[in-house]
Amino acid sequence: MATLRGSRIRHLVVFTLRHEDGTAEAEAFLAALRSLAAVEGVEELDVVRQVGSKNSYQLAVTMEFADRATYEAYNAHPDHVAFVRDRWAADVTDFMEIDLAELAPDGSVDA
Amino acid sequence: MATLRGSRIRHLVVFTLRHEDGTAEAEAFLAALRSLAAVEGVEELDVVRQVGSKNSYQLAVTMEFADRATYEAYNAHPDHVAFVRDRWAADVTDFMEIDLAELAPDGSVDA
Repeated sequence: MATLRGSRIRHLVVFTLRHEDGTAEAEAFLAALRSLAAVEGVEELDVVRQVGSKNSYQLAVTMEFADRATYEAYNAHPDHVAFVRDRWAADVTDFMEIDLAELAPDGSVDA
Repeated sequence: MATLRGSRIRHLVVFTLRHEDGTAEAEAFLAALRSLAAVEGVEELDVVRQVGSKNSYQLAVTMEFADRATYEAYNAHPDHVAFVRDRWAADVTDFMEIDLAELAPDGSVDA
């Protein structure tokens, strides 16, 4: 995983699906999720399993954006809005969002 | 961020420090955290800020391992055990661990 540099933001959502593993419904959801890679500004989209025992989430999606403005444009993009409304809200029972960015150049916590 | 392949595991811990941003205590903690990159098997260690508003964690550390056995060897390594005992337990007020791995080749949720 490349180090986060400059204004880049890595967006991570861990989540649990309503559907059983491997069902047609789960596969259709994952395909729709992966299709978000086509939205302008989305880079490095990856859908993965959450395999740790310290939390109960089942899956995760990660993606990167060049900067916050690109990330906000993705959030407002009609394809993303439709996905959240038509897929996410129906198929996801629990989730948590995490956004990561570079520390300040001196390594301090402040931006 | 490169796609997770094969047996690789990406380990992510989001956390909040007891210390104020930029203090000597916070900097010492971050330096000690970064020093875990020297432990055998640890790859791509990165200490970053958590900038999302959907959770309250302040920082994150990410790293990758070639496989689960390497990850477990890291967990048991004396330098990691000492870090958790001497630094993490004292300086971190809240945290959550996430471990990510590739989906099955057919994209299903099952490994």
